[in-house]
Amino acid sequence: MKVDGTHYRSIWLNEDGWSVGVIEQTRLPHAFETIRLASLADAAHAIRAMLIRGAPLIGATAAYGMAMAMRADPSDVSLAAAYETLHRTRPTAVNLRWALDAMRRELQPLPPGERVAAAYAKAAAICDEDVAINHAIGTHGLPLIRGIAQVKPAGPVNILTHCNAGWLATVDWGTALAPIYMAHDAGLPVHVWVDETRPRNQGAGLTAWELGRHGVPHTVVVDNAGGHLMQHGMVDLCIVGTDRTTAEGDVCNKIGTYLKALAAHDNAVPFYVALPGPTIDWGISDGLTEIPIEERDPAEVTRIWGATEAGEVVPVRVTPPGSPAANYGFDVTPARLVTGLVTERGVCPASRDGLVSLYPEMRRTAAE
Amino acid sequence: MKVDGTHYRSIWLNEDGWSVGVIEQTRLPHAFETIRLASLADAAHAIRAMLIRGAPLIGATAAYGMAMAMRADPSDVSLAAAYETLHRTRPTAVNLRWALDAMRRELQPLPPGERVAAAYAKAAAICDEDVAINHAIGTHGLPLIRGIAQVKPAGPVNILTHCNAGWLATVDWGTALAPIYMAHDAGLPVHVWVDETRPRNQGAGLTAWELGRHGVPHTVVVDNAGGHLMQHGMVDLCIVGTDRTTAEGDVCNKIGTYLKALAAHDNAVPFYVALPGPTIDWGISDGLTEIPIEERDPAEVTRIWGATEAGEVVPVRVTPPGSPAANYGFDVTPARLVTGLVTERGVCPASRDGLVSLYPEMRRTAAE
Repeated sequence: MKVDGTHYRSIWLNEDGWSVGVIEQTRLPHAFETIRLASLADAAHAIRAMLIRGAPLIGATAAYGMAMAMRADPSDVSLAAAYETLHRTRPTAVNLRWALDAMRRELQPLPPGERVAAAYAKAAAICDEDVAINHAIGTHGLPLIRGIAQVKPAGPVNILTHCNAGWLATVDWGTALAPIYMAHDAGLPVHVWVDETRPRNQGAGLTAWELGRHGVPHTVVVDNAGGHLMQHGMVDLCIVGTDRTTAEGDVCNKIGTYLKALAAHDNAVPFYVALPGPTIDWGISDGLTEIPIEERDPAEVTRIWGATEAGEVVPVRVTPPGSPAANYGFDVTPARLVTGLVTERGVCPASRDGLVSLYPEMRRTAAE
Repeated sequence: MKVDGTHYRSIWLNEDGWSVGVIEQTRLPHAFETIRLASLADAAHAIRAMLIRGAPLIGATAAYGMAMAMRADPSDVSLAAAYETLHRTRPTAVNLRWALDAMRRELQPLPPGERVAAAYAKAAAICDEDVAINHAIGTHGLPLIRGIAQVKPAGPVNILTHCNAGWLATVDWGTALAPIYMAHDAGLPVHVWVDETRPRNQGAGLTAWELGRHGVPHTVVVDNAGGHLMQHGMVDLCIVGTDRTTAEGDVCNKIGTYLKALAAHDNAVPFYVALPGPTIDWGISDGLTEIPIEERDPAEVTRIWGATEAGEVVPVRVTPPGSPAANYGFDVTPARLVTGLVTERGVCPASRDGLVSLYPEMRRTAAE
């Protein structure tokens, strides 16, 4: 999407034809800086230090990391070492593993002399595939917004989102934000309520930034506000992303998503979840009992990062020194609270039947 | 309650017999400092600058402010001026108005020479009455905790609370926290999940501080976490305060309360609201349509105050400079989501019949 008029992806091949550019996301929203990754080590560091984040972007960065490793040394030993190095950066990231496996499958059978070109081609294909998937999600989600715009007597379509499921988390377009960008670009009046998304503030820091830079009207609210907004008719539609979706349509997304789904349900506000089909976990059905929820560093709760008046980005402590904190990363929104799933193949009910209608080839795999 | 072993109220008469001590609450949780209010102007400043907050404490501070004004000049002119000065500090604070009216009613009929002693006596009575009410709320709420402790096979009774309805907001005990302090002091095992309560972080800053100083086990969580905790059986009971309660039992409390009530309802967790009877607004019934929700300064959303590593308390910006923010102060939790109201007269259903059963003298006043 655009940053003040210039089109960006979240990762790109530099003009030298082999090094890679990414946006330094830890500096957002306080500074827009791009950095050059010129080696396997650079790519691994960018993933480990979370200079970049978001499952698809992590996968894409890993793919280019392997390509740069091949450029330095296309041997079998180098290939295996690159795989290990990148895998260790975030061992639980499913998409990272998937991208590394795809790269290795592509490169392993080739003679070393052919691996560099093949690696760059495959990394580019992984990026383009992500863009195509997200574009298709946007295309299928757009009618949901258009439908509301057509019947709403006045004012923009108000859409609430949680966390960051935008282009910064993917290669371009994003998942939940793809339909919103398309609606905006198509001239539909949209306004986005952006949940701050404590503790890491991906809404306040990333979603607000990318919407603002592309020119989409939006307002940041604390995570506590969504219920009130929905009670008073100020939200027409919720769209969020998901980290993991079960075969029954339960969605595991950033902590707090469930609370917004409850409020949407209580106020008859449609609640949609946007996702790429490949992130569906066909092997599990009950999100609440089958998905373990990561507990993260309590310091994310007790300390908040922000910019001082002098522009320095620092953490400030918001709790008393002796008070412990707990930091659950995700929660599970049961399918019964989800109006529909927006995928690259279309929109379906959040249910096994709904998902299988879009992914009939998974009928057998879907856990019963 | 206690601060590291020493008993404090949130406001007290100093040993000189006429000036007043309060806790500088804007310094919490980073520093525990008490300040001396020695004039009407000091009291007005403490209220206006929010050095103290919480409806009952604002009322008590205003009462002592009038007493100090009488000490300086007990004339009718002085009395009227003190009333105006204090009323203007926070013109919409119902409890402030109530305390000022009570003081004026007491002092106006008296000859100036008798006003000083009467003013100090009345201010002390206002404080003692608040303590007595909160103590009674605690006494009536305690069996709710004891009942869970008696049937729970292991572990503490886990109680979730939102915002600060503790002794710092009142003169002592607090409302929602009164039953918790009593349970803890009675040796019952309790553990409190403290909602951070963005945007002003009264949970992370004040509730965690006062629980910690009194020795009550607790854990701070972001406002997004409560739904997940309830889905996983980690909350036995919710208790919150309320700023305003309708004759039908709707409660208007800090923004985000409604979301926790929805989660409690969805997971069959009891959701109680503690309140002093005098805060019931018998003239209104439907909280959603009849209670206007204050919009506060968006800077509370975009900037978070906290302590740097050097110990300096500063604001840090968490949003992009160009992104607007909205800041709704409260939301309304419909009576249908409230398990019961805990008052100084007992526990009742959140309904007109429930409230009238405890306050039969209000039967005629209660709007139909």
